[in-house]
Amino acid sequence: MPPVHELDLILDQVRALLAQGQVEEAADLISALRPTEAADVVAALHPADGADVLEELDPADRAEVVEELEPGIGADVLIELDEDERTDVANRLDAEALSEFLDEMAPDDAADVLGELDETKAEAALAEMDQEDEVRELLEHEEDSAGGLMIPHVVAFRQSMTVQQTIEFLRRHKPDEETSYYLFVTDDADRLIGVVSLRQLVVAAPHVQLGAIMKPDVITADVGTDQEECARLLARYDLLALPIVDDDRKLVGVVTADDLFDVVEEEATEDIYHLANLDADEDVYDNVFRSSRRRLTWLFVNLPTALFAAWVVSRFTNTIAALAVLPSFALIVNGQGGNAGIQTLTLIVRSLALGEITLRDSWRTLTREFIIGGLNGMIFGVCVGVIGLVWQGSMMLGLVVGAALLLNLINAAIVGTLVPLGLRLCKVDPALASGVIVTTFTDVMGSVCLYGIATILLSYGFLGGW
Amino acid sequence: MPPVHELDLILDQVRALLAQGQVEEAADLISALRPTEAADVVAALHPADGADVLEELDPADRAEVVEELEPGIGADVLIELDEDERTDVANRLDAEALSEFLDEMAPDDAADVLGELDETKAEAALAEMDQEDEVRELLEHEEDSAGGLMIPHVVAFRQSMTVQQTIEFLRRHKPDEETSYYLFVTDDADRLIGVVSLRQLVVAAPHVQLGAIMKPDVITADVGTDQEECARLLARYDLLALPIVDDDRKLVGVVTADDLFDVVEEEATEDIYHLANLDADEDVYDNVFRSSRRRLTWLFVNLPTALFAAWVVSRFTNTIAALAVLPSFALIVNGQGGNAGIQTLTLIVRSLALGEITLRDSWRTLTREFIIGGLNGMIFGVCVGVIGLVWQGSMMLGLVVGAALLLNLINAAIVGTLVPLGLRLCKVDPALASGVIVTTFTDVMGSVCLYGIATILLSYGFLGGW
Repeated sequence: MPPVHELDLILDQVRALLAQGQVEEAADLISALRPTEAADVVAALHPADGADVLEELDPADRAEVVEELEPGIGADVLIELDEDERTDVANRLDAEALSEFLDEMAPDDAADVLGELDETKAEAALAEMDQEDEVRELLEHEEDSAGGLMIPHVVAFRQSMTVQQTIEFLRRHKPDEETSYYLFVTDDADRLIGVVSLRQLVVAAPHVQLGAIMKPDVITADVGTDQEECARLLARYDLLALPIVDDDRKLVGVVTADDLFDVVEEEATEDIYHLANLDADEDVYDNVFRSSRRRLTWLFVNLPTALFAAWVVSRFTNTIAALAVLPSFALIVNGQGGNAGIQTLTLIVRSLALGEITLRDSWRTLTREFIIGGLNGMIFGVCVGVIGLVWQGSMMLGLVVGAALLLNLINAAIVGTLVPLGLRLCKVDPALASGVIVTTFTDVMGSVCLYGIATILLSYGFLGGW
Repeated sequence: MPPVHELDLILDQVRALLAQGQVEEAADLISALRPTEAADVVAALHPADGADVLEELDPADRAEVVEELEPGIGADVLIELDEDERTDVANRLDAEALSEFLDEMAPDDAADVLGELDETKAEAALAEMDQEDEVRELLEHEEDSAGGLMIPHVVAFRQSMTVQQTIEFLRRHKPDEETSYYLFVTDDADRLIGVVSLRQLVVAAPHVQLGAIMKPDVITADVGTDQEECARLLARYDLLALPIVDDDRKLVGVVTADDLFDVVEEEATEDIYHLANLDADEDVYDNVFRSSRRRLTWLFVNLPTALFAAWVVSRFTNTIAALAVLPSFALIVNGQGGNAGIQTLTLIVRSLALGEITLRDSWRTLTREFIIGGLNGMIFGVCVGVIGLVWQGSMMLGLVVGAALLLNLINAAIVGTLVPLGLRLCKVDPALASGVIVTTFTDVMGSVCLYGIATILLSYGFLGGW
C-alpha cells in the first residue's frame, strides 16, 4: 500500500485532471489502486466528481470501491451516478450493504434508487432498512408526481412558538439540510396555515411568536401534482421548497428546489427528444446496438406514413413523366412546408409545456397561426413562383408552384397547431407530436397540391406548352 | 369609490377567477375600477398573479395602476411582467417614479430592466437611483454572464465570528431574502475561504466560531462565466447560490438559484426553438405581423439551400421522365434520411448543452453515430428495397432504393454529428445547427444517390426492363 503522502499526491493529480475535464485519465489513476485506497480518494472528492470517475471504471471494480465507502459518502456518490451504473452497483452489493447506503439517503432519493432495481432485490434491501416505512409510502406514488418526489414527515411548528424556542428546537434536532429552508406552521388540527423562512427566523427578535412573522397564503401542491407543475409553481413564485398537503390541508411532505432543478432539465430534454423522434432516455454513451434498435423502431414506425406519401405521389406518374421538372419543385414545396410546420409545432409544444397557452386559447392560437401561414404563403409563393417562371420560362409552372406553396404553408400552420392541441385534449404529451407527423402531412399535401394542380392544368392543355 | 368591503368582494372574485385560469375575466373586473382601487387589489395578489392580470389591461391603464402601487410592491410586479409589457410601463412612467421602483429591486433585476429600455430613458432613471453605482457596475457585464446575473457587494463574515455574533449581526442588518441562504467566510485579505449555510448556523451551538463549522472548498465562478455554466454548477453540486470571485478569489457577488432556475428554462427553450429555426424570443402572444416577418426571414434564408437541392434534382429530368415512379421513392429516401439526421443532430446538440460530451469526444461520437447509421441503413434499406421489389415488381428498383437508403442514413449520421460539433469548434451555439441544414444535406444526398444510381443503371440498360 502506498504511504499516505503518496495517496495525497494521487488525489492532487486526480483533482487536477478533473479540473481539465480529463475524467478517463483520472479513472485510470484510481483503477491502479486497491479498492480501499481508491475509496479514500473518491471520498475526498465532491460526490458528483467521485461519481464521474467511478462511471469510467470496470463494473466489478466500481462496485468494490463503492463497497469500501462509508455509508454517508457512498449514499451521496450513488445518487450522483448515472442510472445504469447505479443500478449495476446496487445489484452487485448484497442487500445489507445496499440498505446501509439507502438509509443514509433522503427517503425520496432512496425510493428513486429502489424503483430502478428489480423487485426481489428492492424487497430484500427494503426489509433491511431503518426508514423502510417512509420509503414504502413514497413508492406508492407515481415517480414523476409530487408524492414520488417529496420528503415525507416534515417537522411542523405551532404558531405560538417563539423564535428563540424554534432555534433551540432546531439546535437539538438538527433537521436535514434540504428540508430546513422553510419552517411550516400548522394549527391544532395539523393544517398548514403559514410558512417562515429560515432567514426570517434568523433576523427576527428572539421573543416574537412564529404566528406573528409567518407568511399565510402558502403555495402548496398535493401528492398527485405532476412534477412539471411543481417546477412551474416553484419557478413562478421563486420558492426553495413546495409543501405538499392532503385534502384537509394537512402537511404530508415537502418537495425541494434541488429535485425540481433536475426536473426542469429532464422535461426539457424529453420535449426536445420527442420532437425529434428520439426516446427520452437515449444517451450518447448508450450501447450502440441498443441505440440502433431504438432509432430503427422509430424509422419503422414512420415507414407506413412515408409509404402512404410515396403511394400518393405514385398516383401522379403520368404527370411526372410529362413534366419531369416537377419533382425538383416538389422538394421546395414539401421542404419549406415541413419547415414552416415544424416552426409552428415547436412553438405550440413549448408554449404548452411552459404553461403559456392552454386548451382555452386553441381558437385564438389557430387563427393566429392560420394568418401567419396565409401571409407567408402568399409572399413566399409569389417569390418562388417567379423563380419557377424565370428558371423554366413558364408562367403556368410559376403559378402551379406558387399556389402549391400557399396551400402547403396554410396546411402546415393548421396541422402544426392542431396535432399538439389535439394530443393535449386527449391527455397525451403534446411533445409526442414529433415533427414526423407534421412533415408527413406537409409531404402529402404539398405533393397533392403541386402534382394535382399540374395534372388538372395538363388535362386542359395549359401546361404542355414549353 | 366602492366601500372597503366591496373591494374585498372584488378581490375574492379576482382570486377565484385566477384559480381557474380565467385571467382575462379577472382583468375585466379590475379595469372597471379606478387606478387607486385597482392598485389595492393588485397589491393584495401574489406579484406573479398581479403581473398576469396587468398584462391583460390596456397599456395606458396598466401604467396608471402600476404608478399607484407602493414602490416595494410595484418593483415585485414589474419584475414578474413579460418583457414587452414591462418596457411599455417603464417608458410611460417618469424617470423619478421609475427610479423608486428600481431602487426597491435587487441590483441584478434593476440592471435587467434598465437593459431593456432605450439609453436616454435608462440614463435618466439611473441618475435618480440610490443604488446607481451598484447597478452601473452590473450593466458593464454581459447580460447572460455571471457578472450580469449576480447580486454584487454581498456581506462576508470573518471566521473568528461566533454563531451568536453572526445571528445578532443578521438581526441588526436584515440582509435580503435571496442572498442569505449562505454566509460567505473570508480571510483578512477578503479572499473567500469557506461557506456556512443558514441551516448550519441555526443548528450550531451559539459559542462556536464560523471557522469551525464552515465548509472549505467552495464551488465558485467568475464574472465572465456563462449563465448556462453557472446553472450547470448549481444543479450539479445542489447549491442554492453560487459565489462569484475575481482572480484573487475575492468575493464580488453571488448568483442565486431563483435566477438560474429561469436560465435553465430559457436556455432549453432557446435550443428547442433554434433546432426548429424559430427566433429564441418568439412568443405565442407576439404581434402576428412580427411573427410572420421573422418566420418568413427563415424561409428565405433556407430558400437558397432548397433551390440548390431542386437544381440537383433537375439534373435528373431524363431519368425521372423514363422512370416516373422514382420521385415516390425519393420521398422515402429523403424523408427517412432527414428523420435519422435530425435524431442524431438533436442528440448531439442536447448532449453538448448538458455538458455530457465535449469536443474531446468528437471522434468517439462520430464513430458511434456512423455505426448506428450503417447498421440501420442496412436493415432499413433491405426492408424498403423488398417493398420496392414487391410493389413495382423490379429487383433492380429494389436494389437502387435500398442502396440509396443505406448511403443516405450514413450521410445523415455524419452530417448530424459534424455540423453541431463544427459549430462548437468555431465557438458558435451548436443549437443554431437547425434541422434545416441537416435535411438539406439529406435531401441532396438522397436525391443524388437515388437518381444517380438509377441513371447509371439505366445507361447500362439494367433498369428499363419493366
